[in-house]
Amino acid sequence: MNSPHEHARIIPIHADPRPATQPVRSAYERPAPSSRDDLARVGRGTPMGELLRRYWHPVGLAADAGAIPRLVTVLGEELILFRSGQGEVGLLYPRCAHRGTSLIYGKVEDDGIRCCYHGWKFGPAGQCLDQPCEPEGGKVRHKIFQPGYPVQERYGLIWAYMGPPRKQPVLPLYEPFENLLAGEFIEADDTSIGGGGPVVVDCNWFQHWENVVDPWHVLVLHGTFSGAQFTDVMLRAPTITFEATPIGVKVTSLRTLEDGATFRRITEVGIPTLRVVPNPQVGKFERVESIGFVLPMDDTHFRIYTVGRVREKGELTAFRSRQKGKRWAELTPGEHREFPGDYEAQVGQGAITLHSEEHLATSDKGIALLRRFMKQQMDLVAGGGDPAGVSFAPADAMVRFEAGNFREG
Amino acid sequence: MNSPHEHARIIPIHADPRPATQPVRSAYERPAPSSRDDLARVGRGTPMGELLRRYWHPVGLAADAGAIPRLVTVLGEELILFRSGQGEVGLLYPRCAHRGTSLIYGKVEDDGIRCCYHGWKFGPAGQCLDQPCEPEGGKVRHKIFQPGYPVQERYGLIWAYMGPPRKQPVLPLYEPFENLLAGEFIEADDTSIGGGGPVVVDCNWFQHWENVVDPWHVLVLHGTFSGAQFTDVMLRAPTITFEATPIGVKVTSLRTLEDGATFRRITEVGIPTLRVVPNPQVGKFERVESIGFVLPMDDTHFRIYTVGRVREKGELTAFRSRQKGKRWAELTPGEHREFPGDYEAQVGQGAITLHSEEHLATSDKGIALLRRFMKQQMDLVAGGGDPAGVSFAPADAMVRFEAGNFREG
Amino acid sequence: MNSPHEHARIIPIHADPRPATQPVRSAYERPAPSSRDDLARVGRGTPMGELLRRYWHPVGLAADAGAIPRLVTVLGEELILFRSGQGEVGLLYPRCAHRGTSLIYGKVEDDGIRCCYHGWKFGPAGQCLDQPCEPEGGKVRHKIFQPGYPVQERYGLIWAYMGPPRKQPVLPLYEPFENLLAGEFIEADDTSIGGGGPVVVDCNWFQHWENVVDPWHVLVLHGTFSGAQFTDVMLRAPTITFEATPIGVKVTSLRTLEDGATFRRITEVGIPTLRVVPNPQVGKFERVESIGFVLPMDDTHFRIYTVGRVREKGELTAFRSRQKGKRWAELTPGEHREFPGDYEAQVGQGAITLHSEEHLATSDKGIALLRRFMKQQMDLVAGGGDPAGVSFAPADAMVRFEAGNFREG
Repeated sequence: MNSPHEHARIIPIHADPRPATQPVRSAYERPAPSSRDDLARVGRGTPMGELLRRYWHPVGLAADAGAIPRLVTVLGEELILFRSGQGEVGLLYPRCAHRGTSLIYGKVEDDGIRCCYHGWKFGPAGQCLDQPCEPEGGKVRHKIFQPGYPVQERYGLIWAYMGPPRKQPVLPLYEPFENLLAGEFIEADDTSIGGGGPVVVDCNWFQHWENVVDPWHVLVLHGTFSGAQFTDVMLRAPTITFEATPIGVKVTSLRTLEDGATFRRITEVGIPTLRVVPNPQVGKFERVESIGFVLPMDDTHFRIYTVGRVREKGELTAFRSRQKGKRWAELTPGEHREFPGDYEAQVGQGAITLHSEEHLATSDKGIALLRRFMKQQMDLVAGGGDPAGVSFAPADAMVRFEAGNFREG
Repeated sequence: MNSPHEHARIIPIHADPRPATQPVRSAYERPAPSSRDDLARVGRGTPMGELLRRYWHPVGLAADAGAIPRLVTVLGEELILFRSGQGEVGLLYPRCAHRGTSLIYGKVEDDGIRCCYHGWKFGPAGQCLDQPCEPEGGKVRHKIFQPGYPVQERYGLIWAYMGPPRKQPVLPLYEPFENLLAGEFIEADDTSIGGGGPVVVDCNWFQHWENVVDPWHVLVLHGTFSGAQFTDVMLRAPTITFEATPIGVKVTSLRTLEDGATFRRITEVGIPTLRVVPNPQVGKFERVESIGFVLPMDDTHFRIYTVGRVREKGELTAFRSRQKGKRWAELTPGEHREFPGDYEAQVGQGAITLHSEEHLATSDKGIALLRRFMKQQMDLVAGGGDPAGVSFAPADAMVRFEAGNFREG
Repeated sequence: MNSPHEHARIIPIHADPRPATQPVRSAYERPAPSSRDDLARVGRGTPMGELLRRYWHPVGLAADAGAIPRLVTVLGEELILFRSGQGEVGLLYPRCAHRGTSLIYGKVEDDGIRCCYHGWKFGPAGQCLDQPCEPEGGKVRHKIFQPGYPVQERYGLIWAYMGPPRKQPVLPLYEPFENLLAGEFIEADDTSIGGGGPVVVDCNWFQHWENVVDPWHVLVLHGTFSGAQFTDVMLRAPTITFEATPIGVKVTSLRTLEDGATFRRITEVGIPTLRVVPNPQVGKFERVESIGFVLPMDDTHFRIYTVGRVREKGELTAFRSRQKGKRWAELTPGEHREFPGDYEAQVGQGAITLHSEEHLATSDKGIALLRRFMKQQMDLVAGGGDPAGVSFAPADAMVRFEAGNFREG
């Protein structure tokens, strides 16, 4: 009774009549993709890594340098940040020159940091000050140096120079922080304002930096997609122009206000990693009040240190967007998908984007200018020259910007 | 008083008299092992990957294609599955053709999916429909295509063809689902029935597929080891024969029932990845009622979509084995060790087994036949031919099987 | 009113006057580092791996070999340890000779272990005893062998020999465990006493072993850093001498006690991996009471088996240090940083230390001697010879040490 191909009653059902979706271009035939490593890699010896190493970068808040050694990751290198009891900041290679134990387990003393294993002590400049297990505390200890990098403090941050010593420039002064109005003071923040997500963002820093000269995404990503993350005036259709500057790229957006006046918004990026972005909430019309310093931690992670002129403590940090009343870290995976922001858009390009697959359009002119500018600077450095914006004389330390939200006419 | 080698009183204890266990063959001398990459790799450009790409594969339940974009992993490729408001299903390369942001953050609209970053919109076939940040919505947008793959719906599943476009076959009709008895209907399941463990199984798909033509393991793994996972009749000693078929391998097990009748059980595998396995619970004697479509997600992960003729909703899914009243996911590591099933046996071979170390025996004839068959098919495709079972004419779309549990005499 | 560079009132603030910390040696100019792979790698075919394979190593407590198969990792190899119902211990390659399923899912029977998949059974020596799915239980099963290694039991441990069979030495007898005083008995421990942290330590075994001939770290790491982890007498300034021995390196520390007597402490390392360390708590003066057998699990993980003469059950295990009343696993990351011990110091050197960056000093003479000794032994083995301390005659099985805490004069 039960043999193959035998059925009491047959009720045929027909295949679904819906025709196949037939793509215009099969993914089977797409070429092997590639990334522009020159833009993405930040390690020692890479074109971008060598360019970035010709500038000072923030490696922590001033308060991060203290009696407890702190591990920081900068341009693909791990380093130990501390402040001696005498107040000198040190930024040293983490592996003790003696036997390689990490100085993260070291004890900070009045004049340096002492390794936990055999007690070798190094001053903030790396000089070996003591070898307690050696006769007379080490007769040749003066020949031992823990490698490190020069640091300076300014604007509430610790700055490090990680490039060739003979090329060390002066630490810049940034004009927006130098000429304060009454009641204003300088505040520093380390929570990656502008990154749109967690403090440490897990993608290449350059795809974040490109976002700064990409004003059009504001209308889509922060407008129609996530429901006006910014103020209404920002979502009015602008006229946008892109221009190269001596130190990067400038984006000018002109909007007509309800009263007929012109709202001129200028955003800049400045070499090496500066986000010079006026407040997108446009609380008032003025020159740019803060600068974000993107820190490439390694090829696929970055964080942002921000310095700003404020009138109230915590003013910078308060300035974070919410979705459905929730901060980014509180959103569910579904809500991240539903309300994407800068983090999702940029990390959504991959840890390192595949440049070969891009189709840049007229609205991407800022990105094209920026890549061209940085390529020129990499070539300059590779050829033995000094890149844009580095100064070797204290008199030339001031850096100026045009960025701001301005009301005209 | 306490110097070396001086002891007041000596109590010798003797070494354990038990002799060493002395292996017949030292593991020190075993040769370096190797895997048969041709059987295991499924990526584009590999022999098996190119063979598998000549067939349609299920990439989701029909309901998985909806207004929320869904990331699927198929043959080592990540793809975005969605259904436009107009009901058309799209399966697109995930990186937006513009700047590479994942379409997982896209918004599904009436006629396509829109990238969150700059709003480029693509139809289900990948045609670019809008570039909102470009003048006039993109004057050359018609030249932009998001790569993708053709899809069709049938039997409650979305099927994709990921091979060379000019070799696209017709989507098969499977005879077991075409001629239904009264009261029967088709149900689809995505929980990897037959995998013996979690939905996504973390080993190479082929070592799972080989298991289907390996009836002997039922007596050991599902019999003496885990305490009769299947019905008693399945644990009676069978007479087993293995045969090649035009589309794979067939296993026939003959058992004598208590009343003297013969229980003929035919199990098949069919190219590309079909498990054509009659119900091992043997509830009734009939032609095979379901087919499992093994989906190689990548070289070391697979899942199984199952389609079956049923009389009650949920009939397919209800059909999962338990140990000590617990489902697989509820067992402790110790219980997994104590009650191994298909998951443990196959994942226990490693993510990709080491073929060089195997010792196939007479009971493994099905596996030998299957490897030979698939090698022939890979060679056929590599030589420019069309593999077994693909049809290019709708009239040839029907695929038939002999599989079933049959009572004879 | 609000245009760039226009400010009602200017309050200049000056850059922080603190000068830059200017390192003596820039980390930018440090050379590319390297490790001594010969010291670190333990796999088959590496110099150290081949040297270590000429000795017996502990692979578990005697109780670890039982009716439940146990996965052990030794010298980079995974193996299955079990004890048949008849009491024979087996240590077999984990992948079943049939189809490669792990024997961790096997069932231990009276005379061997049976694979879960198709039931092949192997005796403790690897001989194939049954192939239940084959006719007559496998007519040629006697030609199949599961590879394995010889094992013996002694001192509460299972010992394995993983080298070339024709070079198998006798299992050593260790003198400290052979001549017991009244009331003494042998205890074995598997909790990595001396490792200073978790049972499995995640760094190369050799950087741990070097620590044993590095008495100076005791004064710093266990003294000033973590607040006298050991007894006061150990923190008195010693006179230390280092000497090569026929089987390793010996460290002698002389300290003058309060009553004018001399406290002579001798610590040894013995090939292949022995820590012959007298009790650092110095409860009494006597020859060494325990030996630690460091087991290199792979290149970057080790554990320690310890055997000791004791008078009370659990005496060995009780002997663990605490910080702030907490065991190592209970400390917070901050407390680990604040109270580093052997684990932090050694794992803090990295998974494999960078030997090229070291600066060994006079206090590191023990380490220099140990590296030289092991290099000689590796060269000996590579040249076809037999390394130090292996014996092929039972009469030569006894290994003696000078180690102990002794009071003199």
